[in-house]
Order: sequence, then structure tokens, then C-alpha cells
Amino acid sequence: MVVILENNATEEQIKNVEEHLHKYGFEIHKSIGAQRTILGAIGVQPNFDTRKIKILDGVSEVFRVTAPYKLASRSFQESNTVIKIKDVEIGANQIAMMSGPCSVESEEQIFKLAEVVAKSGAKILRGGAFKPRSSPYSFQGMGEDGLKLMRAAADQNNLLVITEVMQISQIDLINQYTDIFQIGARNMQNFPLLKELGKVDKPIMLKRGLSATIEEWLMSAEYILSAGNKDVMLCERGIRTFEKYTRNTFDLSSIPVVHKKSHLPVIADPSHATGLRDQVPAMARAAVAAGADGLMIEIHHDPENALSDGPQALLPDTYSKLFQELKLIAKAINRDI
Amino acid sequence: MVVILENNATEEQIKNVEEHLHKYGFEIHKSIGAQRTILGAIGVQPNFDTRKIKILDGVSEVFRVTAPYKLASRSFQESNTVIKIKDVEIGANQIAMMSGPCSVESEEQIFKLAEVVAKSGAKILRGGAFKPRSSPYSFQGMGEDGLKLMRAAADQNNLLVITEVMQISQIDLINQYTDIFQIGARNMQNFPLLKELGKVDKPIMLKRGLSATIEEWLMSAEYILSAGNKDVMLCERGIRTFEKYTRNTFDLSSIPVVHKKSHLPVIADPSHATGLRDQVPAMARAAVAAGADGLMIEIHHDPENALSDGPQALLPDTYSKLFQELKLIAKAINRDI
Amino acid sequence: MVVILENNATEEQIKNVEEHLHKYGFEIHKSIGAQRTILGAIGVQPNFDTRKIKILDGVSEVFRVTAPYKLASRSFQESNTVIKIKDVEIGANQIAMMSGPCSVESEEQIFKLAEVVAKSGAKILRGGAFKPRSSPYSFQGMGEDGLKLMRAAADQNNLLVITEVMQISQIDLINQYTDIFQIGARNMQNFPLLKELGKVDKPIMLKRGLSATIEEWLMSAEYILSAGNKDVMLCERGIRTFEKYTRNTFDLSSIPVVHKKSHLPVIADPSHATGLRDQVPAMARAAVAAGADGLMIEIHHDPENALSDGPQALLPDTYSKLFQELKLIAKAINRDI
Amino acid sequence: MVVILENNATEEQIKNVEEHLHKYGFEIHKSIGAQRTILGAIGVQPNFDTRKIKILDGVSEVFRVTAPYKLASRSFQESNTVIKIKDVEIGANQIAMMSGPCSVESEEQIFKLAEVVAKSGAKILRGGAFKPRSSPYSFQGMGEDGLKLMRAAADQNNLLVITEVMQISQIDLINQYTDIFQIGARNMQNFPLLKELGKVDKPIMLKRGLSATIEEWLMSAEYILSAGNKDVMLCERGIRTFEKYTRNTFDLSSIPVVHKKSHLPVIADPSHATGLRDQVPAMARAAVAAGADGLMIEIHHDPENALSDGPQALLPDTYSKLFQELKLIAKAINRDI
Repeated sequence: MVVILENNATEEQIKNVEEHLHKYGFEIHKSIGAQRTILGAIGVQPNFDTRKIKILDGVSEVFRVTAPYKLASRSFQESNTVIKIKDVEIGANQIAMMSGPCSVESEEQIFKLAEVVAKSGAKILRGGAFKPRSSPYSFQGMGEDGLKLMRAAADQNNLLVITEVMQISQIDLINQYTDIFQIGARNMQNFPLLKELGKVDKPIMLKRGLSATIEEWLMSAEYILSAGNKDVMLCERGIRTFEKYTRNTFDLSSIPVVHKKSHLPVIADPSHATGLRDQVPAMARAAVAAGADGLMIEIHHDPENALSDGPQALLPDTYSKLFQELKLIAKAINRDI
Repeated sequence: MVVILENNATEEQIKNVEEHLHKYGFEIHKSIGAQRTILGAIGVQPNFDTRKIKILDGVSEVFRVTAPYKLASRSFQESNTVIKIKDVEIGANQIAMMSGPCSVESEEQIFKLAEVVAKSGAKILRGGAFKPRSSPYSFQGMGEDGLKLMRAAADQNNLLVITEVMQISQIDLINQYTDIFQIGARNMQNFPLLKELGKVDKPIMLKRGLSATIEEWLMSAEYILSAGNKDVMLCERGIRTFEKYTRNTFDLSSIPVVHKKSHLPVIADPSHATGLRDQVPAMARAAVAAGADGLMIEIHHDPENALSDGPQALLPDTYSKLFQELKLIAKAINRDI
Repeated sequence: MVVILENNATEEQIKNVEEHLHKYGFEIHKSIGAQRTILGAIGVQPNFDTRKIKILDGVSEVFRVTAPYKLASRSFQESNTVIKIKDVEIGANQIAMMSGPCSVESEEQIFKLAEVVAKSGAKILRGGAFKPRSSPYSFQGMGEDGLKLMRAAADQNNLLVITEVMQISQIDLINQYTDIFQIGARNMQNFPLLKELGKVDKPIMLKRGLSATIEEWLMSAEYILSAGNKDVMLCERGIRTFEKYTRNTFDLSSIPVVHKKSHLPVIADPSHATGLRDQVPAMARAAVAAGADGLMIEIHHDPENALSDGPQALLPDTYSKLFQELKLIAKAINRDI
Repeated sequence: MVVILENNATEEQIKNVEEHLHKYGFEIHKSIGAQRTILGAIGVQPNFDTRKIKILDGVSEVFRVTAPYKLASRSFQESNTVIKIKDVEIGANQIAMMSGPCSVESEEQIFKLAEVVAKSGAKILRGGAFKPRSSPYSFQGMGEDGLKLMRAAADQNNLLVITEVMQISQIDLINQYTDIFQIGARNMQNFPLLKELGKVDKPIMLKRGLSATIEEWLMSAEYILSAGNKDVMLCERGIRTFEKYTRNTFDLSSIPVVHKKSHLPVIADPSHATGLRDQVPAMARAAVAAGADGLMIEIHHDPENALSDGPQALLPDTYSKLFQELKLIAKAINRDI
């Protein structure tokens, strides 16, 4: 932490700040310039609330020096985290494709789509059994029946399963059926849920909150990591801005930024980021070009009758065509998909 | 719902749109202008996903006509909701003052502050026993011990208690000690929690999420209302913007907007909105002048040693002085505090 | 400027950073902690681009210590700037009321409204003769004819005039008619215009840009101040956020923040911030309670037929009633209006 | 325009709304549903202020049906605008590469960089002679000397020139040296400047404002188009959000959206969007994959000593390598670069 004193800070004020820093356990390095005094405060917990110093008389600015997260940081672990699930690796050279419907709706639907996914060459089936919906009057998911159907459809097509967990009481149940737990954007700071998932022995995909900074996103990953689960991947799915023509603003620059700050893999979800089918292919291509370690893409064979998010689902044919384009782009940056 | 066709939409496309509207259960009113055709689609569920029509060929724009919430709307209930708890009314003429520390930290602390609160004339004691912290390494609250202390301190000073509930498994425990359940900003869209609190027979204060629109906030209130609990109050606590000099941007215009759209009371929390003590009084005054039905203000007798959010806590003396100023402002708009 | 080195920065990298700092003219204070080295760099121009250091190998973070503005800062001038125009003072105890139509539309209109303004007790008449409109097809203002009418209406009612200048070539013309030049939000960073207005001998009111940070706003004030014009007042008029129920988000916390960082007066414009008449009174009251040094409020005797922004204009009666309420609120915080 | 009446709107209120619509020149189509009445209002100017109807008693919502821009819209011109300058086409299959320094700084610098640009295969040299800087104390550009040097360097290397114009009085001067006028983000709504550039017979590149919606951006293009200049290209350069790790948030989804709504070409500027050199390549690749019609990339042979924006400039070697990668990505989507 670095403390900048006001130009006109008095000796007494500076002394008071130093005493506080000592009290809070800091070692002090003092620099007295022509105009200002700067105090370097070293040796503190990452979660120290810097406002405690900011409000003292004579203090102009306070800057935190160390990132507030540790286990998630690139300086803690230099090499990329590679998550292995059976024969799939996430975070290595191959880009992981996770596809499927928004919600599991019926046996016919999920088996049909699982086949599309497998034929395209993707290895992970996505699908929701418990759905977080902003309206209490909307379809809330098939629950355990949906989980069973998705597991069966995945097994028949040699696919892995990823599905969302919304609350602690669902963890054990979902654990019987899934290979990867997804934490939705609205739960990114549901800390009790994060802690519990830190004790699970399966990988977690943590979606970025609608208005979360990259730092907060990494802090939420830290909750899971610090509880013992090292297999965490992040998922960019768009942030909220003032723009009205798109559902969210897909923050693709978060991909290189996270890769610089952290060793964790980053998945990109162009379906939720844009919310409309006709923008998905362009944004999927852009995500691969930007360095995403995986893509999550919603598909549906009959989107008009989908029970949730049909308008952002690709038709199987469009999806298969897109998959081929993505291979070319991946190749251009020396990766596979 | 209103569907605007493209200038150059073909007869076939328009017919296709009409068929879809019929299939989804709408009654259609068709207006054929010189340049465009407009379809008024009437009679549908509030949660219909308008994108289902937007993606059809020939469709230019689709507008939802009815608000997606019902029980929370002013058109459902014209008169203001007034929540009664013992001798306190929230949402009537008197502005409710909720004050106390961010976290309960010790018996001495909470009793001392409860006395300050009572002497000022406020009737509700706030304090956290379970704390949502963005860092896993931060103080997470005293838990049940904190609840017990707060209840005892409130009872001794004839105060009501408001405290935050973070997860479903805490509801029964907290219910033994609190008069009002608070839902934090990060849990505004924790739908399972909202549903469960809809079954509780105590009032709920629902904080606005960091980047929630007013509409989404009212939708979350709808979750609680539709599960049976009619005593919901909202709490504006600042939204996230690009501005860096303040922690959040206190959206005071949400107060008149909510009062127009809904019958539910609105509380304002200048402490969390600004994050720094020296901005709290000006924003507390502004909130009263803007028509807030209550204020939530953090105080601490020793903020330097507070275990959480000390920098935004007012000292008892500043708080008492502010309370007097607020009385004058309330009087200027014919309200009491 | 403070430079934080990476945990694992090499001696060579640190030396390279120090050499750069010397080259750029900094004096260095070096603090070597157990884990990290921190360099305090003192003595540089306020506009140094800190990214020049941030991109050097081994550098973790760089923080600017001094504000990038000087003349606008509270540390440069401790006492409030009070702008005197004839018998009106802006920035002193009395809150300045600037009212009138969005655009001057006719002789009858501006004389009628000037009378309303004068009778209410306000001393400054606002009105636009050159209008910045987002559509090229909208009414663009009456030009010089409008200026003449406004001046005459103001003179007859003993009022001052404030009007917007949109481009350099208009300055001389407008200078013949106005008492205060207004710079609109869209021109907050029109630097050539700011520089020219720095040479004018009349006060300037600088509106905050739609997405300007408070720091950028003060930097734009610095452009005017550094060109020689000391009579600058700022005007908060709402910032752009994701919220859709309001036109902009009125950032009232900018008022105490600017008062802390700067000595310049702050005016608040609830008409443009909210965009709808029924929200203006609540936000006008809140602005006074938050400490605004003045208010800018649009009125119109026939808003339905106003040529611009009619929907946000108050009717004369509502305006007069509001003025009385504002007096009570001003009194509650020991100010006049 | 579509007007939705309140559920409980009275006959009198509805009649009043209809009368207003007639007065404003609309033809009315009335739909009376079980619960609500909807009025379709047809035949009005694109710039009608819908709030005029929204504030009438009994009105619930008002939606504009037609886009507020006309000449810029895809429905006005179905085929893509292709801008031809000598042997270069912008908006056709080949992606236009515009590269060079942020500012022209010296003869040596601009000739050296022009050579790098030409060798890489790009055909357009960028460089600033008049610089919009947020601080009045920063380097403001070389002015006409810079223009002369850039023209000479471009001519020697058979390149076109693009440079920024900041004010009306510079147009004639810059016109002598440039092939394309650039309008900077801060001037996107400098309407007098837009109108004047609408009379120029050279292409215009219009950067998106820091917080401009896509609709406002197209409205600003409309200003130029409606004044007579049809050769307008747009440039996405990042928007302002709450994220702190990046300078701006590069809104790549604006590319497919603009391509859907408008016929104008879209250029992407990853240098300004990210602000840091190490994020530029990933974002340049993503922009090509997302369908950009051109890229604007800053380069510098000695970025440490650049007079502006050095930290975001690529070194010539990195730039040449990136150019090769971009060719592969362009090829993957059947385009050239």
C-alpha cells in the first residue's frame, strides 16, 4: 500500500498516519520529496480496507499495491492451469467447445441436440435443469428429470456434461449427473455457494457477473480456490453498458487481460453476450481470435418453441458451419478446436 | 406487445408473423399504414420473450406493452404499501431511520451504538451478523452470537432489528432474532432465496443490485410478493458507473421513479452508495428531499477499528447532528422523521 | 508518481525503470521491502503519461500522485470561487436560480417566461439560441434573433442572461448579448472552444459531459482557467448509465465531491438529468439539499408546443410552487435561494 | 410511433391523446383490446420528440417506430457503401489497414514509419497534426508542419493519408494535405463540424463517442450524409464502462450490429480501445474475425519517446508479425487484407 500525503500535510498529521500504519501491522518506507511525503506501507493482508487510511487527516490518496487475490494470480502460478476431465483438456492448446440447449426440455430434444454436438466434434454438452429467470412466472427448468436426460444423452454420445447450480442444496444432486458445475452470472458473488463449490472435486466454470470488474471476478475465483478446488475456469458472457442494440456488451478484451493477470482458463459465451442469433457467429469467431480457451454456444433444433432463450440459439446447420469457420481461425493462431 | 414490420416486409412475412402470434396465444390488431404495418398483440403472459417475434423475417421492432411485473406495480395497487411493525410504519408519512454498525462486533459495541440510535430518535437498529465480503480473507461476521447481541441491544433500547440474510439455510435462525430481513445487493437476483423469503411472515428490505435496472429490481420484488409476502420495501444503495471518485453512483432519481411505477416504499442508503463518511450527510439530506421513505445509515463509535466498512460510518456526534438537519428537510416537504 | 515493481522483478529491470524515470526528469525515492520494491517518482509535469512506465518490464502498477489539474484544485485555492455579475453572486451563500425555456422561440414566449422567472425571485434567464440537436432534422434555434429577444426580455425584467455557445465563430456575436456563456455537455472536451472561452471576460458555465468523470470535467475547467478566465462554474446534468427509466442518471454525489476537490461553484440541472417534468421537482429539492450552488430549471408556458424539450419543462405554476419548497430546504441547510 | 394507453385511461384522456396526434400531423390507427387501447401513429418526421405524447394523461408508453436516421440506414440503401480513393476501396472485400504514429513528431519519425507501413502492405498512413488532449499542458501536435511532413512521407511511399480535424477553421488547411478526414470521439456530436464536413468532397471517418450508443453514432453520420457527403465510414474505438483494467471496453459487437442497421463501412481501432500495446494484437485479430472493414493501428519505432500515446503503439516488428496473422484470419472468413 502506498500513502500519498497532502501537499500541506502537517508533521502531526503525518505522524498520526504513521502510527495508524504501525497499528495495522505495516512496515513503513518514508519518502520525503520537495512537495510531498509518500509512505510505502509493506506487509499487510491483501484484504486491508485502504479507506481506513484514506479518511485520516492529511492523506491525499491511498493505493493498494498487491492484487487482492493470490491463488488466482499469475504471479502465484506462472504456468497455465490445465483442467483435465477424462480425455478433455481445458486451458491447453485445444479450444473447448461446450454446446447444447439453454434448457433441457424433453428427452427428444436433448438427445437430438446431443447428437448434433457430438457430430460437430465438440466434446461437452451444456444444458440447464435449474434456470435462474428474472421473472417468477417464467419456466424454471425440469429439475432432476432434466439432469437424468442430459446425462443419458451425453453418455450415449460420449460427451461431458456442464450444467448450472443455483443453490447449495442442489450440489449433491447435480454432482451425481454433471462433469462440470457452472456458476451463473447472478451468483458470481453468492459467497456461500462459492465456498461450498470449493469443496467439490469437480471443475467449476465461473461466469462473470453482469457488472463485475475483472478484479472482482478473480476474487470470486479466489473463494473457490481457497476452499480447496483448483479446477476453476472463468467465463466471459458480456457486461452491462448503456448500449441498447445489444443485450450486453461482450468484453472480449477481458480474455487477454485475464490471461495476463491469472493462470486460469477463460471460456467465452457469445450467445448470452449478444442475445440474438444473428450476432453469435461473428462474436464466436472474434472470441477464438482473441484467445479464448473455450466457447459456450447455445443451439436448438426448434428455437421458436424453445422454453427459454430460443432467440439466441443457433440452428444445428448454422452451428456446424460456424464450427468449420472456427477451425480455420483457430489454425491461424496455432490452436485446435 | 406491439410488432412493427419492416418497410419492405412481404405479405408472406406478415402472415407468418401473425401465425406465430396466434400460436403464442395473442389476439391481433392490425394497422396498415402508408409505409408500414403495425401489429398490436394483446392478451399474453407478462414474461413472454419478445425476441421470439423479433427474430422473424420482416420484423423491425417489438415492444413489450405491459410491465413484466404485476403485484409490484402501481396499476395493481394504487395506494402506497405501508408496512407496520409494532409501532413503526414504513411507507407512511414518517421517514424510517435505520441506523447502526455495518457489522456487530462485540457486546460493548452494539449496546453502545444501540443507545446512540435510540437517543437520536430512530426506531430501527441495523447490524450485520453474516457478511457478504468480496474477499474470502475478510471478516465474515459473528454469526448467531452477533444476532443474539443485536436482539438484546435492540430490546433494551426499544428498537426494531434489521439484518441481512445471505442464504436459505440461515432464514430460520435469523427469524428468531430479527424484525426485518435484508436482502443484499449481490443477492437481488438470488431467486431461490427470494422465493423462500416470500414465505416468511416478516417484512423484507430488498437492496438494488449493483447494476440492476429499476425494472429488474421490481421483478425481484415480484418474486417475493408472488410467493405470498406483501411486506416488501426497496433500498437504493448506488449503482456502478465509470466514475472513480465515488464508490458507486447514488441514483436518487430512482426514488420518484419507483414511487410512480410501484406502491412499495423506498429506503435510501447513502453509506454504501458513497463509501466515504464525508459524503454521507449531503447524500442523506438529498435522499430525504427526493422523497425517500426511510434512510439506512451506518454509524460507529470507533470507525478506525471497525471490522468492516469503518470509513463510511458516521461518528455518533455527526450522526446526531445530521439527524437534526434531516428533520428540517423532512418538515420542508411536510414529512416527519 | 509511484511505481510498484513486480515481486520477481530483476535488478536489471529495476535499474532500467530508474533510468527511465531519470530520463523523464523525476527525482527517485526508493523503498525496498521484503517482497517488493517501490519507487516514488517526484517532480514531474501533471500531464505525464504514466503508461510510459507501466509498460516497462518488471513494473506491476503505476499510480499518479498529483491531480492532473492544478488551477481548478482546492489545494491551489482554498477559498470558494465566488463569481460576481452585477448584483448576483454565484458560489456564495445564496443559491443561484437560472430558469427559462430550452429554446427561445418567439418574442411573446420569451417575454412571458422572463416575467415568470423574475416574479419567482430568480435573477438569471436561461434560453438557447443555437441548439445542439442529435438529429440534423430537428429545430436548430433562432440564432441572433433569439439572442436579441432574450436580451430585451431579460433587461425589461432586470435579469441576467445565460446562453449556450456551440462553436468558436459564435463567441463574438453571443458576447454582445449574454452575461454568462454556457458550454454544453457535448462540447465539454471541445478543446479549441474551451481555449477561446478562456480569453473571454465573462463567466463560463461548463456542463459535465454525458460520460465524463469528475476528473475529466475538472481538466476541462483547467483549459479555461489556464487560458486566463477565472470565472468558471460547473454544471452537473446527469451521466449515462444502463438505466432505461430515466434519460440520464443525475449524479448528485458529484456536488460534495467537487466541493472537496475544487473551489469552483457547482450548478445542478435536474431538467436535463431526468428529461421528464414529473421527476424535476424531487431532483431539484435533492440538489439543493446536496449543496448545489445553483439550479438550472427549464420552464415553458405551453410545453406541448415547445420546439425543443417541452416534456421536461415545468409549467409556471409548478415552478413557482417548487421555488417556495426550495426556499424551505435551503433554509434547513442555512442557505438562501 | 405507437402509443400505449394506461389500463384505466378514460375516454376523455384517449380523445385528448388522439387530438394531440392529429395536431402533430399523425394519421391514427386505433386498436381497442380487452384491457388496453393502442394507438398507431403514422406519418411523422423521424425527429419527433415522443416525450410530447408520453407526458399526456392516460399514456403508459410511447415507442418510436422508425429509426431516427434515414440516409445511414440499410433500409435506405441495401448494398454496402464502398468508398474509393485512388486504388483503395473501403467497404469491399479487402480490409483496409490504416497505420502510423499517434502524432507526427519529426521528419525522421514519419518517414521511417511510413516506410514500415508501406512495406507491411498497408495503404493508408495515419498520424495526428492537431491533437485533442485532455490536459491543456500536453503536446498539442505539430500543426501544418506535421501535415506537410505526413503528406511527403505518404507520397514517397505511395500511401494515402488520414488525419484528424478538430475544428471548422482547420478544414481548408487539412484539405490540402489529407485523403481522409478523421473526426475524433470527442467531436462525434460537434454538430457544426459535422455539417461543414458534409460539404467536403473527401471521405470522412467518424469515430464513435466514448459513451455514444450505436444509434447516436449513426445519427451523427446522418449529419454528414444529409449535408451532401456520401463517403462516410465509422470507427469503433471502445466505450466507457466501469472496468478499470482496460482503458475502454472495445465493443466488437457493434460491428455486426452496424452492418445490419447500416450500409456504411466500419473500421476498428484496437489501439485506442485498449490503450496498452500488449492487448492490441489479440483485439486486432478479434476485430478482423468480427467482420471489420478496416483496422486503425498505432505504431512507433521508439514508443518510449513518443510525444503521445506511446504505450499503445506497436513496435514495427510486432506490427509486421501481426499483419501476417491478420491475413490468415481474413482468409478464414474469405476476405483479404
